[in-house]
Formats: sequence, C-alpha cells, structure tokens
Amino acid sequence: MNRILFEKDEIEDGVATCGGERAAHILGVLHGEVGQQLKTGEVDGRIGTGEIVEIARGEGPVVRVKVCHDQKSISPWIDLVLAPPRPRVMKRLLPQLAAMGVGRIVLVGAKKVEKDFWGATLLKEENYRPLLIDGLMQAGTSILPTLETRRNFRRFVEAELDALFPTARRIVAHPYGAEGAKGAEGAAGRPLLAIGPEGGWTDDEVSLLESKGFARYSLGPRILRTDTATVALLARLQL
Amino acid sequence: MNRILFEKDEIEDGVATCGGERAAHILGVLHGEVGQQLKTGEVDGRIGTGEIVEIARGEGPVVRVKVCHDQKSISPWIDLVLAPPRPRVMKRLLPQLAAMGVGRIVLVGAKKVEKDFWGATLLKEENYRPLLIDGLMQAGTSILPTLETRRNFRRFVEAELDALFPTARRIVAHPYGAEGAKGAEGAAGRPLLAIGPEGGWTDDEVSLLESKGFARYSLGPRILRTDTATVALLARLQL
Repeated sequence: MNRILFEKDEIEDGVATCGGERAAHILGVLHGEVGQQLKTGEVDGRIGTGEIVEIARGEGPVVRVKVCHDQKSISPWIDLVLAPPRPRVMKRLLPQLAAMGVGRIVLVGAKKVEKDFWGATLLKEENYRPLLIDGLMQAGTSILPTLETRRNFRRFVEAELDALFPTARRIVAHPYGAEGAKGAEGAAGRPLLAIGPEGGWTDDEVSLLESKGFARYSLGPRILRTDTATVALLARLQL
Repeated sequence: MNRILFEKDEIEDGVATCGGERAAHILGVLHGEVGQQLKTGEVDGRIGTGEIVEIARGEGPVVRVKVCHDQKSISPWIDLVLAPPRPRVMKRLLPQLAAMGVGRIVLVGAKKVEKDFWGATLLKEENYRPLLIDGLMQAGTSILPTLETRRNFRRFVEAELDALFPTARRIVAHPYGAEGAKGAEGAAGRPLLAIGPEGGWTDDEVSLLESKGFARYSLGPRILRTDTATVALLARLQL
C-alpha cells in the first residue's frame, strides 16, 4: 500500500478510521505511531496526507488518522472491453487494472467466455470493489474504475459501444497478425482496448470489432496468458 | 498450453510419453484423440509437431505422441537481475518471465529482500523448473531460462556482472525519476534489466548499478507491484 484510502463514510470531521488490513499495514509494515504522517486519500475522491492521531491496539487494531485531502489524484487514461477469463485469473487481474490506470471496464460475453463466469460471486460489487481499491492503494491513486457487464457481445458492440466510447483510438488484442498496431498508432484520443477470452476471440468477433474501427494489436510470436497480455498491452499503449 | 513440451528422457525412439497435467490438458482441453496433431517440443531443445498414437485412460491418464521436432524455437532476448519478491509473488512471476522470453535470471540479495527468502523451497530446481516450463508451454517456445542466486549484491555487481553480461544496454527499474530511460534507449545489444525488491532499491544500490552503466527507467507516477512492473517493463523494452 503506497497510499491508504478511506471510504467517504469512514471519514468524519476530518478524521478517518480504519481497521482490518489497512490498520495491520499501518502498524506492521509502516511501523505507525501517533504523530506519524501517511499518504492518504478518499476512494473516488481527493488525495493528500494524514497524521495518525490514535491507535487502539487489540485483537482487531483500529487506527484513526487526521486527514487533509487537498489534491486531485491522477486520472485513468484508458478503458477496457474485456471478455473475462476464469474468476481466479480475473481476481488477480482486477487490482492490476486499477493500479495501471484503467477507468472503465466493460465485461462482455464473447463466445469462448465460460458460461458459468456470469454467476461468479466476484461480479458482486462487495467482492470486486475491494480488489480495485487494493490496486489504487498500491499505485497511490484514488479514482475507482467502474465495472459493467454486457453478456450480449454483438448487441453491445453494434448498439452501445460508439455512444459509451466516442474515441477513435481503438485497439483489439489479437495474437495473430503483424506485431504492433499500425492502424491505431496514429489515432488520437483516450485509448479503448478490447481483450479477448482465454481461448481467444472468434473470427466473427474480431471482424465485428474491426468494423467498428478497432486495429489489431499483436504482442509478437509468444502467446501470453490473458492477465500477462493485458498488463503488457497497457504498458505499451501508455507510451 | 499452446505447446506440449517433453523432457528429453520422456522421448524414446521418436515417441514422447506424458501423464499428469499435460495428459489432462490434451484430453480435457484439446479433446485429444488418436491421430490428432499437436504442437510439441523438447524442453530446452527443438520444437515441431506430434501425433497422438496412444491414449491410456485411467485414474492417471497417459498419452503417447509420435513427435517430429525439426524447428528451432525463438530465443530469449533479455536477461534479468532480480531482487526477489516474496516466494508467493515469485511463484506467480516465474512462468510469466519464461513466457515473455527471459533467458537468464540472477536472483540477488538486495537490502530489502526478505532474509528468509533464501531458504524458500521455491529455490530448488525441482520446484521452480516446472513453473518455467509452464510459461514456455503457454508461450509456445522451448528454451528454458536459467536461474542462479547471488546473495552478495555488491560483490556480484562489482566482480561478476561485466563478465556475465557484456552488454551496454542496461536498465534499472526505479519508480523515481523521469519516465522512460533516455540513457538506455540509444544503447545497442541484448538488454539486461535490474528489478528491485518489493520495498525498492536503496540509494546505494541504485548508485552502484548506475556506476555500471545502468540507466534508470520509470514506469510513471503509478507505483506498481513487483510482478506487474516486471511484465510492464519487459513489454516496453521488447518494442
């Protein structure tokens, strides 16, 4: 954790209270003491610094921090259309997406997405939200990515995509084709990246995306796991 | 698994035999049948194709494949000096390093490496080798990365590094400083990347690396987890 984030309702009269993992981190890793300064912020709000004003040690330690959140966090810079991998991989990926600056995540039902994914408990906000916040605390930022689901891939691309993402810089990850994405490199605007399922996009799905201006982007001859490929693509597109 | 790799001693008279996870993958994911073609290869050897010649189903299924390994795998393109993260993170990272084309991994004892890391069972070849092979099978390549340990960081850098890695293109990952690595971009040759521990390099360690020609490389204002940062850096340097 490079910044401790608090939910709005954990802050009262400028004093934020936390227990659990954050308190354990403040005490165990940061060796927190009363008077110590911390980097802090509010989930989906502003960031700044805090001063520890009270430590209640006990079975579940609680830390109280006087906070001053007077700065804006850096903002997300890219959005994702993601055909979700298995929940186990997705769980590992979500904090990394938040940390790398993804703003909006739309999970889509491509053909090779496992059908039972849509019943995963991970899709409940109470389960994915803490993973996204973990990523923000790692990165030191505070703007929470949004997560939506669209099970009908074709309907989403044909009827909704242009309105939701009016950007010209659209890239679809695809292991076959020339390395890089010549088509998308010249386009301006905030990038929108489409990442296929673990078994890959079908030809129809790639064609549909191409008809909407997505340029194929290949990471080269090595075929990477979904989560590795996503991090690699985000790193390259940020350049 | 985008290629099934066999150890040398699993191949006899051109027929390779496997059980365990590989057999389960061939049968469960690839719906393997006798006569079916597969992408195959030999660990640290050549790659090619195979034809399933026998399937012994049972509690532990065994698959026999007639293989023809007549092609060279693409080769690793980068080496790594890595101050290891916790074994749990390291375990997740190793397959990704192999998949992304790392050739030689030297684990070094930087100051903030946890002391008990060096006793981790993960450091036994029988434990890390399967993780590296998993990465190769994902990527479809076959050249096995090597893994060495050097607990004395200063001695390694001062006395050994130049002989082991006679390249001019040296980069040290460091979150502070200008984004990118101006110093290293012009340098030629196979890159050597130094990645710090989870708590970061000390100033002395960065200075020591800089004295050996390493250029600082920052991924920008977001601080990434060791494994995310490593994948991101490999993706960028490959460009």
